[in-house]
Amino acid sequence: MTPTAPLRFDDGALLILDQRALPAAERWVRCERPEEVAEAIRTLAVRGAPAIGLAAAYGLALGNGDFDAAAAELAGTRPTAVNLAWAIERAREAYAEGGRAAVLELAQRLERDQQAADRRLAELGAERFGEHERALTHCNTGPLATGGYGTAAGVLRAAWEAGRLEQVWVSETRPLLQGARLTSWELEREGIPFRVVTDGSAGALMARGLVDRVVVGADRIAANGDVANKVGTYPLAVLARRHGVPFYVAAPLSTIDPRTPDGAAIPIEEREPSEVVTGAPALNLAFDVTPAELVDAIVTEAGVFEPPYPDAIRRALS
Amino acid sequence: MTPTAPLRFDDGALLILDQRALPAAERWVRCERPEEVAEAIRTLAVRGAPAIGLAAAYGLALGNGDFDAAAAELAGTRPTAVNLAWAIERAREAYAEGGRAAVLELAQRLERDQQAADRRLAELGAERFGEHERALTHCNTGPLATGGYGTAAGVLRAAWEAGRLEQVWVSETRPLLQGARLTSWELEREGIPFRVVTDGSAGALMARGLVDRVVVGADRIAANGDVANKVGTYPLAVLARRHGVPFYVAAPLSTIDPRTPDGAAIPIEEREPSEVVTGAPALNLAFDVTPAELVDAIVTEAGVFEPPYPDAIRRALS
Repeated sequence: MTPTAPLRFDDGALLILDQRALPAAERWVRCERPEEVAEAIRTLAVRGAPAIGLAAAYGLALGNGDFDAAAAELAGTRPTAVNLAWAIERAREAYAEGGRAAVLELAQRLERDQQAADRRLAELGAERFGEHERALTHCNTGPLATGGYGTAAGVLRAAWEAGRLEQVWVSETRPLLQGARLTSWELEREGIPFRVVTDGSAGALMARGLVDRVVVGADRIAANGDVANKVGTYPLAVLARRHGVPFYVAAPLSTIDPRTPDGAAIPIEEREPSEVVTGAPALNLAFDVTPAELVDAIVTEAGVFEPPYPDAIRRALS
Repeated sequence: MTPTAPLRFDDGALLILDQRALPAAERWVRCERPEEVAEAIRTLAVRGAPAIGLAAAYGLALGNGDFDAAAAELAGTRPTAVNLAWAIERAREAYAEGGRAAVLELAQRLERDQQAADRRLAELGAERFGEHERALTHCNTGPLATGGYGTAAGVLRAAWEAGRLEQVWVSETRPLLQGARLTSWELEREGIPFRVVTDGSAGALMARGLVDRVVVGADRIAANGDVANKVGTYPLAVLARRHGVPFYVAAPLSTIDPRTPDGAAIPIEEREPSEVVTGAPALNLAFDVTPAELVDAIVTEAGVFEPPYPDAIRRALS
């Protein structure tokens, strides 16, 4: 496991690296019951669509209470990322077959699968890079977000290792600064050159010709290729299209939800206004939807999809 | 003077309401020499294109040192807002004619002129509003930014008073949160309903049909109608065009610089990376440029300009 892994299962407990405290402090939250894991997901001690799926699976291996109640509580923590529902469904099947021991085995397998998927999609994405590219990314999609090599950040890391990346633009990602706090922390450890910018700066950077590619992750991809991701992603896609900058979404197949027909059907989490501002009214939409028409490629472990997405997605999931 | 006025000239000193401390505290910085005013402008105790022009004019009425050196220092504090250079030029003429007493008279006249211009452009802008509009604005363009009624925020206030405004979306405006801190403070005092959103949220709001109009201010408008304004403005214009939302720029004529041919010729201030993030490299562009083609109207005290802007601007300034 890399030193930035978000989860560690150890001696009957799930240890969660508290991402709310990073980069100032490396604190671990010890969870011995699924309710504690649910609380950690709800309060963003662990976040990132793949990582919360893994945390939920490990969480369901814990304790000896009512499995269904725990599954329901975990499923209700965050509505947008489909990986959560996907992992809980698999945990339910494992539990029916072999109880909590089977759930633990499943969680460990899902973690290995995620790591393998990350490596594969990172390589596939990096192959698209030219030379000396300056790529912009949003939010955090590295090891902290996936438990593996990273999705969008994994693509950037693979491009860096292949000598194709010059620099990463990290949008700070308000209100919780996953870019400024977490992605910059990971890139620093990985030795990849980067600079943080405010979320409103992407237009100025693109207008100056300083962005060669935008690569982001996803919390849910609908059957038609519409992408829900951290709020602020959609403006990046609109700007990228205007400036002829390729816009890629990198995500494992578990992020694609064939039962969600399009972006309008994706539930968008609204979080506490106090995350944005104190002492004033606010609306805190955690995600937005980027229509498929603005996505130049969806990079998965099963291949790089290009429009039209409905066909590519159907084939990949069948 | 309204209670939120950013400046007060009193007993041979310029008192500057320290906007860095708002809304937590109302602190006044007392300046008895132009160098102190320059420092207040540089460190953003006073900000907003019209307000820093006024502060510079008052500043040049202070002290008894070398006028030209003081003018040069004030002119060098912030490069993008043309109102600063414009006011300093007028102060130089006044000084040549009547010394510091004439500069003080000029500053007081410029303040009254700004107040009148704000009122007029606010009324002209508000006339464009339909009914129950939800308008989005960026940064701070109210009394704190102009010393008057406000530019973009003045338009919103006039629309509110005319019963045409339902709610304002305030983008928080990173890194220094002029929207979340200052605009929300002003709107609260004015009794205008508003909600703060992160800068990355505008796309999601427009996609949901929650924005009827975008109104922003300007730090410099080039002869061709290109607009430099707080970074994050250009993405709003691109999104507004995509969603068919009218995008207005509200500014006094003093913000138009006929000697700057287009946006590419506007110097864009780069501020300290530490304003964005501590402990990581950052690029802190304070402004961006919105091309004239994305601006549906420029609202000034001399009328509402519509494309083609070069003609309208030439006529208004001649």
